[in-house]
Amino acid sequence: MKKYVYSFGGGKADGSADMKNLLGGKGANLAEMSNLGVPVPPGFTITTEVCTAYYENNKNYPEELEGQVLDALAKVEKLMGRKFGDVKNPLLFSVRSGARVSMPGMMDTVLNLGLNDETVKGLIEQTANERFAYDSYRRFVHMYADVVMECRAESEEEVDPFEIIIHEKKKGRGVKNDTDLTAGDLKELVSEYKAMIKKRFKKDFPDDPMDQLWGAIGAVFGSWNGARAITYRKLNEIPEHWGTAVNVQTMVFGNMGESSATGVAFTRDPATGEKRFFGEWLKNAQGEDVVAGIRTPQPVNLAGKTSDNEESLEEEMPGVYKELEGVYHKLEDHYRDMQDIEFTIQEGKLWMLQTRNGKRTAAAAIRIAVEMAKEGMIDEKTAVSRVKPEQLDQLLHPMFDPKAEKKVLAKGLPASPGAATGRAVFTAERAVEAKEKGERVILIRLETSPEDIGGMDAAQGILTARGGMTSHAAVVARGMGKCCVAGCGALEIDYVKRQFTVGETVVKAGDWISLDGSTGEVMLGQVKTIIPELSGDFSILMGWADKIRAIGVRTNADTPKDAKVARDFGAEGIGLCRTEHMFFEGDRINAMREMILADDEAGRRAALAKLLPMQKSDFLGIFRAMEGLPVTIRLLDPPLHEFLPHSEKEIEEMAKLMKVSADKIKAKTESLKEFNPMLGHRGCRLGITYPEITEMQARAIVEAACELTKEKIKVLPEIMVPLIGTVQEFENQAMIIRATAQKVFAEKGVSVEYLVGTMIEIPRAALTADKVAVQAEFFSFGTNDLTQMTFGYSRDDAGVFLPGYVEQGILPWDPFQRIDEEGVGQLIELGVTRGRSARPHLKIGICGEHGGEPNSVHFCHQVGMNYVSCSPFRVPIARLAAAQAALKDEALATVTK
Amino acid sequence: MKKYVYSFGGGKADGSADMKNLLGGKGANLAEMSNLGVPVPPGFTITTEVCTAYYENNKNYPEELEGQVLDALAKVEKLMGRKFGDVKNPLLFSVRSGARVSMPGMMDTVLNLGLNDETVKGLIEQTANERFAYDSYRRFVHMYADVVMECRAESEEEVDPFEIIIHEKKKGRGVKNDTDLTAGDLKELVSEYKAMIKKRFKKDFPDDPMDQLWGAIGAVFGSWNGARAITYRKLNEIPEHWGTAVNVQTMVFGNMGESSATGVAFTRDPATGEKRFFGEWLKNAQGEDVVAGIRTPQPVNLAGKTSDNEESLEEEMPGVYKELEGVYHKLEDHYRDMQDIEFTIQEGKLWMLQTRNGKRTAAAAIRIAVEMAKEGMIDEKTAVSRVKPEQLDQLLHPMFDPKAEKKVLAKGLPASPGAATGRAVFTAERAVEAKEKGERVILIRLETSPEDIGGMDAAQGILTARGGMTSHAAVVARGMGKCCVAGCGALEIDYVKRQFTVGETVVKAGDWISLDGSTGEVMLGQVKTIIPELSGDFSILMGWADKIRAIGVRTNADTPKDAKVARDFGAEGIGLCRTEHMFFEGDRINAMREMILADDEAGRRAALAKLLPMQKSDFLGIFRAMEGLPVTIRLLDPPLHEFLPHSEKEIEEMAKLMKVSADKIKAKTESLKEFNPMLGHRGCRLGITYPEITEMQARAIVEAACELTKEKIKVLPEIMVPLIGTVQEFENQAMIIRATAQKVFAEKGVSVEYLVGTMIEIPRAALTADKVAVQAEFFSFGTNDLTQMTFGYSRDDAGVFLPGYVEQGILPWDPFQRIDEEGVGQLIELGVTRGRSARPHLKIGICGEHGGEPNSVHFCHQVGMNYVSCSPFRVPIARLAAAQAALKDEALATVTK
Repeated sequence: MKKYVYSFGGGKADGSADMKNLLGGKGANLAEMSNLGVPVPPGFTITTEVCTAYYENNKNYPEELEGQVLDALAKVEKLMGRKFGDVKNPLLFSVRSGARVSMPGMMDTVLNLGLNDETVKGLIEQTANERFAYDSYRRFVHMYADVVMECRAESEEEVDPFEIIIHEKKKGRGVKNDTDLTAGDLKELVSEYKAMIKKRFKKDFPDDPMDQLWGAIGAVFGSWNGARAITYRKLNEIPEHWGTAVNVQTMVFGNMGESSATGVAFTRDPATGEKRFFGEWLKNAQGEDVVAGIRTPQPVNLAGKTSDNEESLEEEMPGVYKELEGVYHKLEDHYRDMQDIEFTIQEGKLWMLQTRNGKRTAAAAIRIAVEMAKEGMIDEKTAVSRVKPEQLDQLLHPMFDPKAEKKVLAKGLPASPGAATGRAVFTAERAVEAKEKGERVILIRLETSPEDIGGMDAAQGILTARGGMTSHAAVVARGMGKCCVAGCGALEIDYVKRQFTVGETVVKAGDWISLDGSTGEVMLGQVKTIIPELSGDFSILMGWADKIRAIGVRTNADTPKDAKVARDFGAEGIGLCRTEHMFFEGDRINAMREMILADDEAGRRAALAKLLPMQKSDFLGIFRAMEGLPVTIRLLDPPLHEFLPHSEKEIEEMAKLMKVSADKIKAKTESLKEFNPMLGHRGCRLGITYPEITEMQARAIVEAACELTKEKIKVLPEIMVPLIGTVQEFENQAMIIRATAQKVFAEKGVSVEYLVGTMIEIPRAALTADKVAVQAEFFSFGTNDLTQMTFGYSRDDAGVFLPGYVEQGILPWDPFQRIDEEGVGQLIELGVTRGRSARPHLKIGICGEHGGEPNSVHFCHQVGMNYVSCSPFRVPIARLAAAQAALKDEALATVTK
Repeated sequence: MKKYVYSFGGGKADGSADMKNLLGGKGANLAEMSNLGVPVPPGFTITTEVCTAYYENNKNYPEELEGQVLDALAKVEKLMGRKFGDVKNPLLFSVRSGARVSMPGMMDTVLNLGLNDETVKGLIEQTANERFAYDSYRRFVHMYADVVMECRAESEEEVDPFEIIIHEKKKGRGVKNDTDLTAGDLKELVSEYKAMIKKRFKKDFPDDPMDQLWGAIGAVFGSWNGARAITYRKLNEIPEHWGTAVNVQTMVFGNMGESSATGVAFTRDPATGEKRFFGEWLKNAQGEDVVAGIRTPQPVNLAGKTSDNEESLEEEMPGVYKELEGVYHKLEDHYRDMQDIEFTIQEGKLWMLQTRNGKRTAAAAIRIAVEMAKEGMIDEKTAVSRVKPEQLDQLLHPMFDPKAEKKVLAKGLPASPGAATGRAVFTAERAVEAKEKGERVILIRLETSPEDIGGMDAAQGILTARGGMTSHAAVVARGMGKCCVAGCGALEIDYVKRQFTVGETVVKAGDWISLDGSTGEVMLGQVKTIIPELSGDFSILMGWADKIRAIGVRTNADTPKDAKVARDFGAEGIGLCRTEHMFFEGDRINAMREMILADDEAGRRAALAKLLPMQKSDFLGIFRAMEGLPVTIRLLDPPLHEFLPHSEKEIEEMAKLMKVSADKIKAKTESLKEFNPMLGHRGCRLGITYPEITEMQARAIVEAACELTKEKIKVLPEIMVPLIGTVQEFENQAMIIRATAQKVFAEKGVSVEYLVGTMIEIPRAALTADKVAVQAEFFSFGTNDLTQMTFGYSRDDAGVFLPGYVEQGILPWDPFQRIDEEGVGQLIELGVTRGRSARPHLKIGICGEHGGEPNSVHFCHQVGMNYVSCSPFRVPIARLAAAQAALKDEALATVTK
C-alpha cells in the first residue's frame, strides 16, 4: 500500500529533511526536528503525491488516504494524551500548506481547528481563561470561513462581512478596541458569525471537527490551483506537477497559566555574532504578545539580565531552560548555522515551534562564519557562502545610529549607500566654499552634471530630484563612495529662492538635513551617524574568498585617491579609468573649451598641447598607485557639449576668459546640441572626427608609462577605445594609438608593454565580436550602455516607468542594477564566444555598474570573463560574490556529475 | 607551349566573351566583337596568367612571352598594312590594363605608343597635319612619362614638371591656351619634356618603339600592386591572385582628312527608349572634338536631321553608314540590350572602338525593356531585371526641366525626391495662410517637428538646416511624396529677421527659391518643373514584376489620401499607419493636451473620450480606402512632450484655452522633458503607464471596423504594439486590446477578425523573439529604431559623423538608408528564425524606411519576410526590387545547383 501520510513527533518521524519533494519544505523540516529528538508538537504530513493524484483523478483523493489520516491522527492523540473533538481535553490542530519551495501568499493557515461549542468548553478548562478560549474560537470561525469557505468581501466596494459584525458589536458595547470586548461578547460574535455564514452559503458552519479537518485539507489542495498560486508559479517557474503537501499539527499554548510561556531565542548574538545564547520570553503568553509589546519580554538566561528586576527563564524554570539549552546546541550542531528558534512552554512542557537560520547584521554574519569555521563546524568554503555580499555594504559606509530618531521627509532612490548629514546647499560652488570653511553640506540639485564634481566631492552627500540609479549623480557618488539619494521626485527645487519644498515643508539653504543612501530616505535635521569598524574576521573571510574565486576583481577609479582606496579593498587592477573627469578640474576645463571652440585642427592641437601635461600627470599618479597592476584607461567618451557652460553668466565668464564673443560660444553650444546625446557624437566617434584628441591621450598615457618604467616602476597600461560598433572604428583608433606609442618609445628610448582593446557596449559590437577581436587585444563589457541600447532605455529617463515595470512584473528586476540575463546576457555570451573564436585567450572583463552586483558577478563568472570591475567601495562585495559564484558552480558540477 | 597572348581583329579572335578570367573584361569583349565580324582595330591581349606568373617569378615574364608578343604584333601589322616603328607608315598602339572586373583608377591608358622623332614624320604624312602629329607626340611623351616612368609632382607642394614647361612656353609665346601653340611650339615642347626627363631620371626617354611597348606592359603589371589598386581591391574584395591582363590595340584616327570621321551612337533613343538609330558624328575629327563642343556634331542619319543645313553620315558616306547600321543591329542582337557605341572612320574604313549597354532615363529603360520583350529579344524576367528600381523615382515626382537654367546656392541631403519652387516662408502658419491664398511656398525650418505638419502639407517643398535622411522632415516628406532637402548646414536661418543667409547671399521671406529633392540642390529663383507621365509600358513592366516577386508590398500611410495614392501605385495593404500624426490636427491637439495635463485617470479618460470619435473617423476613412486589404495600425508611439507647445506665446494661448496657468503647462513640460527622448517614455511604455490610451485607440479601431463590416465593407485590421522589449510588455497591451475588442463586439453585435502583433525595433525584442511570438500574431521590423539602437546612433544627430564614416570606409553605406546586413541584419534574421520557431506561420514584414530601398528589399526577401512596407511613392520601386530579388535568388539557385 502506498504511503500518503507521514507522522512526526515524539522524538521520531516517518520522513526526514531530504524528502522535500514528497513532504514539502515545512513537512520535511518538522520531520527532521522530530528525528533529532527535539520536542516538536506532533502531527502528520499528507504528501505532495496526494495533490497530484487529486488533480489527476478529478479532484478525488486516493482511497487509502482516509484510513492513513485517521491512523496518523490516532498517533498524535496518543502522544499528546488528548483527543480531537474531545469535550474535556480537546486536541486542536493547525493546518498549513507546504510546497517544495516556499510560496508566500498561496494559502493562509487555519489555526485552532477542532473548536466548536462543545470543545471550546474543554479549552476553557485547559486554559482557565474563558475570554482566550472564545477569542480563539471566534478567530477560528473567521479564519476557517475565510480560507476554506471563501467567505469574504467579493468586491472592492463591499465591506468584509466579519468587519460589519464586529463593528456593530463594538458600537453596541460602546467600546473602541477588539480587546475591550468581553468573553461574553466574543461568544456572541461566534453565533453571529455562524448565522451570517449560514445566510450567505445556505448551509451551516461545520461543527464536526472531522468535517473541519477534511474541509481544510481540501482547501489547501484547492489553493494549489488558485489564481494567486498559478501566478506565483508562473513568475517563479515552478512546475504545476510539483503539488503541495498538507501539514496537520497539534496546537500548543503558552498561555495556559504560570507554568506556560513563550519565547524566541538566537543561538548566537545576531547583532555582533558573539557566541552566546540570547533570547527573550514571557510567562503565560502567546507569541503575538511578545511582538505586541504590551508586556516587556524578559531575558531567557542570567547572562542576559541587565537588572535584578528581570526574571530569566534560567531562574524561573531551570529544568525547562536546561532542556532548551540542550535543544539549541543540538539544532546549531545539526544545521551548522546560527538558529533563530521559537518555543512555547505549555504547562511545564517545552515545545519547539520553529527553527531557522537567523537573520544577522553584516558584522555578525562575518564573525559567526569565521568562528564556526575555526570551531570546525563548517569549512572555509561554507563560511564564505554564509555572508551575503550585499550586506558588506553596511560595513563600508558610515551608517545612522540605529537608535537615533528620524523625521523622514521624502524617499528617493538609494543610489549610493552611506549616511550623510549636512546643511542644504544648491550649487557646487557653495559646497566647495562651505567645505573650505570646514562646514558639512548636502549638495541638492535637480540633476548633477560633470561640472558639479568639485561640489559633489566637497559635500557629505548628494540629493537629486531627477535621474535613476545610474544617473550621473549616482554613478559618480558610488565611485566616490559617497552617500547619494537620487531621483527624489517629491522635491520641488527652487534654485532662485535657494530652497526646496516637499508638500508643506520648506527646506532652505543652510537648514540641516540627513540622507540615508541605503534606504533612499531624506530626513529633516541632524541624525547621528556611526562608522562601523572592519574586524580582523573580515580580512580572514575575504582571504578565504580570494582563494576560492576564479574571476579577478578590478575597480573603476579615475584618481590616485580612488585607486588607493580600491587597492586597500583588494582591487587587482583598474578596469575602468575614465579620462573625461580629468578635464573638468581647474584650468583644464578652459583648455578643453579652447579645443572645442577652435576653428581648425591647428587650433585644436594648440589647446590639446596644454592638456597633455595635465593628463600625463594624472596617469603618473594612477600608475604609481597601481604599481604592478593593470590599468585600463578609456579614451574620451562624453559628447563635447558636456564641457561647455550653459548659464548666461558662465557663458559671459568664458567669453571674457577666452577673448571671444559670447555669441560665438552660444553658436558653438547650439551647433553641438543633440536630440539624443546618448546616441550622438561621442566615444570613438569623437576620436575618429578629431584624431588629434586620441593622439594626445595616447601620448599622455605612453609618456607617463615610459617615465615610470625608467624609474623601475612596473606599469601595465591597457588603452581602451570606447563605443565601438564596427571593427573599422577600432582599427582607425588603434592605428593612431599604436603609431603614437611607437613615436613616444623612440623619443623616450624605452618601450613598455601595453594592450589596445575596446569596450563592448553597442549591440552591434557584440554581434560582430569575432571581427572586432581580430584587432582588439581585450574586451571590456560596458553593460550600462549595452543595457540602454539593448532595451532602448535611457537610464536617465527610465525612472518614469522602470519602477512600475518591476512592480507589475514586466521586468523581474531593474536591468541597470542587475544584468538582464535573458536579453543583454545573450549579447554578452555571444560577444565572449565570438570574441574568443577569433582570439582564443582574449582577456575579457566588465566595467559597467553591474560589475559590483553579486548576481551579475555570478553571470560574468559563468560566461567565462577574466575579471569584473566595480567602484572602490564595492570591491569586497565583488570579491565575495566571485567566490560564491565559483562555489555555486562547483555545487552544480557535483550535482550534474 | 602555353598560350599567353590572344590576338583579335580582322573578323576573328583567339578568345571570346566567356574568357573574362583569362583575358579580363576588356580583352574578352574586344575578342567577342571581333568574332562577331565587327570591325575592331586589331590588337592582342596578354593574359592575366602572365600577371600571376610575373609576381610568382620575382617579376620575370615567362620565357615564351616575348616570342608570342612578336608574333601577335606581326599579325596586327599584316592586318593593318602598317609597321610598328615604321618611318613612313607607322603603326601606333594604345596599351591598357584590363582585370576581370572594371577597376577604375588602377592605371591610366598610354595612347599613341610607337611615336618618336622618326615615326612622327610618318604620322604627319598620314594625317597631313603637322600640328596634330606633334600634339599627339608631346601628349604621348607626357602620358608615357607619367604612367610608365612616374614622372610627376612628388608632393602636394611641388608643381607638375610638365605644367612648368608648358606654362613657360605659353608665357614665352604670349598666349593663353594650349590650343594657341603652333606645331613648332609643340615640337619644342617634346624636346624640352625629354630634356627634363633625362635630368630627372638620369636616362633618356625611350625612343625605340619596342622599348616603349615593353615599358608600358611592365607598367600595367606593376600597377596591379600599386597602392591605388591594392586599396581598391581591398574595398571591393577582389583577390590579389586574379591579376590583370594587358590590351595592346592599334590606334585609329578619325582626323586623317575628309574621308575620316568619328562618332557616337545609340541603338535606341536613350531619353525616350524609342526604337531608332540615333547618334552624332563629326568629319575629320577625334572623339574629344565631339565632347569639346568646338564644332557642332551632325546627326548620323536622315531621320535625325532637324534642318537642311545638317549633314548626315547617311548622306555623306552612304557605304560606311550602311555598314554601321549592320554593326549596330548585330551588336544589339548579340548583347540583347540597347548599345552605346563609339566608332571612328579612318580614311573611309569603319572601326568600332567600343560598345556597351547604354545609359538611359527611367522612361527609356522601361520602354526598351518592354519593347525588347515584345520583340522576343528577351524574356519578361530579363525585362524586369533591366530597369533599376531607384530610377523609377524620376517618374513618380515632378522634375526640373533639364533645359532650365539653375543658380545653385547650397546643397543639402536629397531627403525626399521631387522638384519644388515657391516663395520662402519660415513658419508652418505662414505656409498654411499662403496656401489658402493660392500661393506656392517652400517651408524653411531649422528642423521640423510634428506641429509643422500642416505647414509641410501646405508647402511645395521643405528645406531644413539640420537633421538627416531619416529626420522628421525627411520621413514625413517622403510619406507625403513631397520634395525635401534636409540638413543643409550652409544655411544660417534667422527666424526673427525671417531670412536665411548662405555666405553673402540673403534670402528673405517671400523670395523665390527652388529645391531639387533628388540632388539636394537649393536654387535661387523659379526653376521650371515638368511632371513626367506614366506610360502604358510602366504598367506592363510592373505587372511582370508582380508575377515574379515572392514578397508582398505594402505602404506606410496615415491618411485616406496617402492610402489611395499608394493603392494606385500597387500597394497591397498598409504596413504602418502611425496614429500620432492624427493627434496634431485642429481641435485634436487640444484634447490631446488636455489629456496630458490631466491630474488623474478620470481626467485623462474625459479627454480621451473627446479623441475617440476623431480617431474613429480617421480609421473609417483609411479602412474604406483600403477595403479588402490589411491595415496595420500602430498605437501611440512618440513621447508625450512632443504634443506640448514650446514657445512662450503658444504656452500662453494654450493656458487661456485650457483655463489653466501657464506655470502649470511649463511645469508639465519640464517634468516630461527627457535627456534622450528616443530611449524614453514612449511606445508601449506609454500604454503601460496609461492603459486608458491603449483602450481608447483599440476601441476607435474596432468600432470603425465593426461599423464598416455592417456596411459589408471588408476590413482587415492588424493592431500593432510599438517598442516592445519584453514579451511581458506585449502581453500587458494585448490583453487590453483583446478585452476592448470583445466589449465592442458585444456592444455592436458584430465581430471582426483582427490580429494583434508587434513592432520588432528594440534589439532585445529580436533576441527574445521566440518568447514574443508565443503571444504576438505578427511581427513588423521597425528598422529605423532597430538601426539606431543596434549601432547606438541617434538618426537625428548622426549627421555630424555618419557622412565622414562612409567617406572613410568605416561604414560601406549609410545604415539608415540601406540595411546593415552584417549587424542589424543578424538581429533581423534571428528575429525571423526565433519568431517562426514559436509560431511557424508568423506573418513578418518591415516598416522602416528600408522597406523601399532595393538592396534592403532583397535582404527582406532572403530572410523570408512576407512583405515590405514603404512610403506611397516608393511602392513601385519596392515592387520592382522585390521581383529582382526573386530573380537573383533564382539565378543563385541555378548556379549552386
